[in-house]
Amino acid sequence: MSAIAATAAELDAVVYNEQGLVPVITQDAETGDVLMFAWMNAETLRMTLAEGRMVYWSRSRREIWRKGDTSGNHQDVRAAYYDCDQDALLFKVHQHGAGACHTGERTCFHRQFGG
Amino acid sequence: MSAIAATAAELDAVVYNEQGLVPVITQDAETGDVLMFAWMNAETLRMTLAEGRMVYWSRSRREIWRKGDTSGNHQDVRAAYYDCDQDALLFKVHQHGAGACHTGERTCFHRQFGG
Repeated sequence: MSAIAATAAELDAVVYNEQGLVPVITQDAETGDVLMFAWMNAETLRMTLAEGRMVYWSRSRREIWRKGDTSGNHQDVRAAYYDCDQDALLFKVHQHGAGACHTGERTCFHRQFGG
Repeated sequence: MSAIAATAAELDAVVYNEQGLVPVITQDAETGDVLMFAWMNAETLRMTLAEGRMVYWSRSRREIWRKGDTSGNHQDVRAAYYDCDQDALLFKVHQHGAGACHTGERTCFHRQFGG
């Protein structure tokens, strides 16, 4: 795990939606596979950068979701990016355990249109 | 460009938010780089799969956004995926032109937290 020393200016620039959330893309730092899509609020973004470990906001459970606390499949942060509009985030991670998906698959995007 | 023959069951399974939109991650099929994050509605998803070319919904302009019609930087679809909850999409594309970003950068995620 490696903490990311984001500046106050970088953190303040992030644009949250009307629910106070920002979309997050999580990518395997080694393979380049997109592992999952989820959300963070300002608090879980700060936790993620400080801990060097992915912490999401669960919209369904309405609670902080420290990925892997239940499953063991936690994700160490390797690098963190924000997009040109500052309203979407990309994290490159090291995925522990079987994978990112609750189904046991490595990536949540394991099904393809057209077969 | 290659059309994707999605089934009616696959299309019907996609979950849209309260604005009728689904989040879309666009990834470079050759390099694996995440190029951009945007949105589609049911109509632009069908157009994208039928044309084999990325067609988004512009939330700011509230209109169909056929990527590259203005910039020339269009995106050919190589493969299309949906996640385990069917509420997020991933497209692997061939990026034409300078890149995906309106700034001229190849990817919209060209800035990193912590420098």
